[in-house]
Amino acid sequence: MADEKADKLQVFITNLTSNVQNIANSGFSSMTPDFAWLRRGVVEVFPQPTDVNSETLEKRLVTTNQPLRIKLGIDPTGTDIHLGHSIPVRKLRGFQDAGHIAVLIIGDFTARIGDPTGKSEVRRQLTEADVAQNAQTYLDQVRPILDFDTPGRLEVRYNSEWLSKLNLEKILELLSTMTVGQMLAKEGFADRYKKENPIFIHEFLYPLMQGFDSVAVEADVELGGTDQKFNIAVGRDLQRHFGQKPQFGMLMPILIGTDGVQKMSKSLGNYIGLSEHPGQKYQKLQGVPDNLLKEYFELLTDLPLDQLPENPRDRQTLLAYEVVKQYHGEQAAQEAKVAAQSGGMEGAVPEFSLAEVSHPTKLAYILNVTGLCKSTGEGKRKIQEGGVRLDGDRITDVDTTFASVAELQGKVLQVGKNKFVRLVP
Amino acid sequence: MADEKADKLQVFITNLTSNVQNIANSGFSSMTPDFAWLRRGVVEVFPQPTDVNSETLEKRLVTTNQPLRIKLGIDPTGTDIHLGHSIPVRKLRGFQDAGHIAVLIIGDFTARIGDPTGKSEVRRQLTEADVAQNAQTYLDQVRPILDFDTPGRLEVRYNSEWLSKLNLEKILELLSTMTVGQMLAKEGFADRYKKENPIFIHEFLYPLMQGFDSVAVEADVELGGTDQKFNIAVGRDLQRHFGQKPQFGMLMPILIGTDGVQKMSKSLGNYIGLSEHPGQKYQKLQGVPDNLLKEYFELLTDLPLDQLPENPRDRQTLLAYEVVKQYHGEQAAQEAKVAAQSGGMEGAVPEFSLAEVSHPTKLAYILNVTGLCKSTGEGKRKIQEGGVRLDGDRITDVDTTFASVAELQGKVLQVGKNKFVRLVP
Repeated sequence: MADEKADKLQVFITNLTSNVQNIANSGFSSMTPDFAWLRRGVVEVFPQPTDVNSETLEKRLVTTNQPLRIKLGIDPTGTDIHLGHSIPVRKLRGFQDAGHIAVLIIGDFTARIGDPTGKSEVRRQLTEADVAQNAQTYLDQVRPILDFDTPGRLEVRYNSEWLSKLNLEKILELLSTMTVGQMLAKEGFADRYKKENPIFIHEFLYPLMQGFDSVAVEADVELGGTDQKFNIAVGRDLQRHFGQKPQFGMLMPILIGTDGVQKMSKSLGNYIGLSEHPGQKYQKLQGVPDNLLKEYFELLTDLPLDQLPENPRDRQTLLAYEVVKQYHGEQAAQEAKVAAQSGGMEGAVPEFSLAEVSHPTKLAYILNVTGLCKSTGEGKRKIQEGGVRLDGDRITDVDTTFASVAELQGKVLQVGKNKFVRLVP
Repeated sequence: MADEKADKLQVFITNLTSNVQNIANSGFSSMTPDFAWLRRGVVEVFPQPTDVNSETLEKRLVTTNQPLRIKLGIDPTGTDIHLGHSIPVRKLRGFQDAGHIAVLIIGDFTARIGDPTGKSEVRRQLTEADVAQNAQTYLDQVRPILDFDTPGRLEVRYNSEWLSKLNLEKILELLSTMTVGQMLAKEGFADRYKKENPIFIHEFLYPLMQGFDSVAVEADVELGGTDQKFNIAVGRDLQRHFGQKPQFGMLMPILIGTDGVQKMSKSLGNYIGLSEHPGQKYQKLQGVPDNLLKEYFELLTDLPLDQLPENPRDRQTLLAYEVVKQYHGEQAAQEAKVAAQSGGMEGAVPEFSLAEVSHPTKLAYILNVTGLCKSTGEGKRKIQEGGVRLDGDRITDVDTTFASVAELQGKVLQVGKNKFVRLVP
């Protein structure tokens, strides 16, 4: 009897040890099933624990007495965000729901100074107004994903707040935390250096600036795509240098676009924009190739992955319905589904014929005649407010004029979030 | 007759062309013999003219309507300067005498922040008071060389004036003017990178900071040792970047020490300090090896090099006399010469026997009993004012105490510029 008890105890201890080892290896605890949301769609959490005593992200989540600060950086140079961008934002929502603080950092500093060499397309110089508008557009688009309403769950910070105050002494200190060799090992730099393509020295500052953002907001976790590992690790080093507990890095995949081949990108035409009409979203999602469906479900929905329909067509329909529901609600999802069943997306967007419109013609006038606005004056106001888009591109010049209506044919004109018209010949 | 004239004209034109070519090649004009002082002891002036139309330094000196601004940077981390340091200062005086402005830049900014990694011995952190005192000591020592009196001929600037005001935007702009490859080509960096010795990124900023000094003071010429070519060239690039006419670089040799082998350096013991007693200077200069004499005459005196005595001993005596005269005047040179002839340096410095002094003993007390000061109180004041040196090292602690008089034996105690006592047993 005593032997039996001892045997059982031995088995229990063996299992426990094995469990602890598994936890240590995975970086996640299997003993806290409530953290399933945390694990979902994550490629890597780092640092990995080096032994059972190491702190893991889950340990920090369990032991903290106060909400953790979860950082996500946003580049305000572009305005259009797509489902690929939504992935870390959705994870951020998970942290909010678990009681933590989403810290969205608008990278306005670099956007406003642009690239001093003038050579980079990415770092073109934006005005303060551009940046503010882009940031607003970004926030509008992620509003359905994030919790904007619970007090204390969201901080929006502009990094010029601290970066514009850095002086040469502090910058020398930042630069002194890394060697040239470490920086040249970064993916992107290594390649260019080997090929003898010029790397300008100021480029070394960008990872350090992103890292200093983590110091400034005292981040506990930084979210990003797998391409952000180096920069997030720099943030850890700088936090350590400035006497803070280093953040965890949580890396998520780069979403493959609807073509099933290349990463989702507006310029490749394989994207689904968050500001797109529900009918458009629905149709595009219905066409996602079967081999991508599991990843899309994992990254873009909360549905249990082991309960998906067997039939691929049903899976596509479910995906489309679920994602449209997230952004536009149950009713819009239902309407988009009906429209798609009765002949595709076009049915979901009212059409307006340009046949009677003479040219050249002003956009404000078209907003009026299509019924999207009650007058040409209201059309101008809506343009000024930044509420007008043509095929997803925001139009901000009130005097925008089209020399020929042919330029408009087939495009979707949109006012605010819910008014759409397809312009047809 | 006409042929003869044509021949002569041809010869004249050929000579003229050859002259112009020589001027272009040398970077100096042989047509303006007044510039002999400019040429003397200079290893290189850059940029070299690329064709006869290029601006040369002499052309700029001749054509300018206003005084040129001649920059020399000073590192205020050390206090003791020697004849090697005096070389560019002497050149600066040449420019002052020709009506131009000497701009001495005290590099207080880097001296005060030190090295953020704490790894460099050279860049140890100094207080504002340290820097101010070191700068004052430097100025005291070069006072016999430079023109401090003619109004408008000397500007002393501290580079914290502009460097402490640089913000991140400006620093990104500075860094963007150079590539990593260009910086790694710099002597010193290239070697360390090849050997995989760490180069910290902030080290890339130092040449750019020195270069920005040239922008801040709008330098027309920067003087330096041959090891300064890279940094002076960076200054040219930055001036061009900020819309200024780039400075000329004028490089002078690094002086070989009195051992005839290694460069003059306090730590190698082969130096002659500007604050040394005239008798000490005289004796050391009398011992300069024959193979160095021409270079010492060229770099440290204005004597015509084709009229030097034939006998090496006479040359040494002349050198010693001339240099001591520059720093201490004709009478001191004469005294040093007499003392040296009658048995060496010791004769030139009065001796004081420590036999009667009990120990431990305070420095202020010794200043009194030796007669260098009228009272122990005056001794303390002189120490506080920074006017007391022991074997050339400034003592600033009023409470300096020696446990045993043995520590003092054989050393020269000095108050101000002209009061010396050799402490003997």
